[in-house]
Amino acid sequence: MNLLEALQWRYATKKFDPTQKVDQKLVDQIIDAAWLTPTSSGLQPFQVIEITNQEIKKKIVPIASNQQQVADASHLLVFAAWDNYTEQRIDKIYGYIAHERGQSSDTYKDYTDMLKNVYLNRPAQPKEDALPMEGFTNFDHAAHQAYIAFGMAIAMAAELGVDATPMEGFDNKALDALLNLKEKGLKSVLILPLGYRDSANDWLMPLKKVRHPKNEFLIEIK
Amino acid sequence: MNLLEALQWRYATKKFDPTQKVDQKLVDQIIDAAWLTPTSSGLQPFQVIEITNQEIKKKIVPIASNQQQVADASHLLVFAAWDNYTEQRIDKIYGYIAHERGQSSDTYKDYTDMLKNVYLNRPAQPKEDALPMEGFTNFDHAAHQAYIAFGMAIAMAAELGVDATPMEGFDNKALDALLNLKEKGLKSVLILPLGYRDSANDWLMPLKKVRHPKNEFLIEIK
Repeated sequence: MNLLEALQWRYATKKFDPTQKVDQKLVDQIIDAAWLTPTSSGLQPFQVIEITNQEIKKKIVPIASNQQQVADASHLLVFAAWDNYTEQRIDKIYGYIAHERGQSSDTYKDYTDMLKNVYLNRPAQPKEDALPMEGFTNFDHAAHQAYIAFGMAIAMAAELGVDATPMEGFDNKALDALLNLKEKGLKSVLILPLGYRDSANDWLMPLKKVRHPKNEFLIEIK
Repeated sequence: MNLLEALQWRYATKKFDPTQKVDQKLVDQIIDAAWLTPTSSGLQPFQVIEITNQEIKKKIVPIASNQQQVADASHLLVFAAWDNYTEQRIDKIYGYIAHERGQSSDTYKDYTDMLKNVYLNRPAQPKEDALPMEGFTNFDHAAHQAYIAFGMAIAMAAELGVDATPMEGFDNKALDALLNLKEKGLKSVLILPLGYRDSANDWLMPLKKVRHPKNEFLIEIK
């Protein structure tokens, strides 16, 4: 399937067949698509957590509004963003980039100085007593990048014929606690159960995919 | 190219060849990928603006930190999110979904009532005198969905061998004013110039693509 065919084929799976496991090689490709995602200034400020442990998946069901797909999926991907940008994180990736490109270690100094000037002067998260600042913080910015990767992972899964259920509505704090994300400097943003649809028992599967009419979605300026 | 090959091939193009135009049929597919993107509750709270007008593209260059790709690209896509969720917007899409599926018009009433309870009680944007609320507003939520579509559009462009430069850093308010987005109930979020790389003059093209080492990106819970 090319990507457009795949996007027509996919849907937010409501019922997985718990007896069908996705081949690890396919899951690896889905994670690779997220890994290769372009991000702002190449900082790649998020990680993916791949969960196959059934007990952990079961514990996440109530955290995810009792959506049973979390337990029935063979793999659960959690997209978790950096809780903040730090000098160390910025230097680490740009040191690695210079190393991998065979460049001297100070190649990106001007660029990382500029990044630090932007990020290290912006709050990590809104403070109780902070003034509102357009809702924009370092965590928000990092989370945005995870959404791009989420799109890539959904696309890759569809192209491979793997079903997925993109989920945004869950108790982020409870999931962070369960997975010990705070100590890793991460906060959960999105989850993506992967598996195979139970066609006979999925109410959404037979329904037509509907989007806004194209002429209400697209504005052309010629 | 399959998607993984395409993601290895693509890079944030720094110099387009302004004499090469992308075939409109390819651009249409890139827009279709954004259009088919899954979004929270299927509300699809964003639009795409496709700009081929050279004068407008030139006016956007200074708005986009003087990045010349905006003018040299043959097509510029602007991703703009709803400035707020409203009763009318929620009813409109769910009325259309019911119509397209041949269902009665009240099929989704319980669901849209639930959505309205969530969205209509959340502010559109932070107010000057508002308390901070985790930086999360209706516009933020809508913008997140545009990021998923942005990922899809980048993926589709790459798969078609079309170069693109994902851009997040621009003067959103100036772009909104130039494109009269406020009167459309939209706010710009992301822009994506599309074209073909000028290989001889693009400094980034020959450099190795670098991501965090895979074992620092992926956490496995087995």
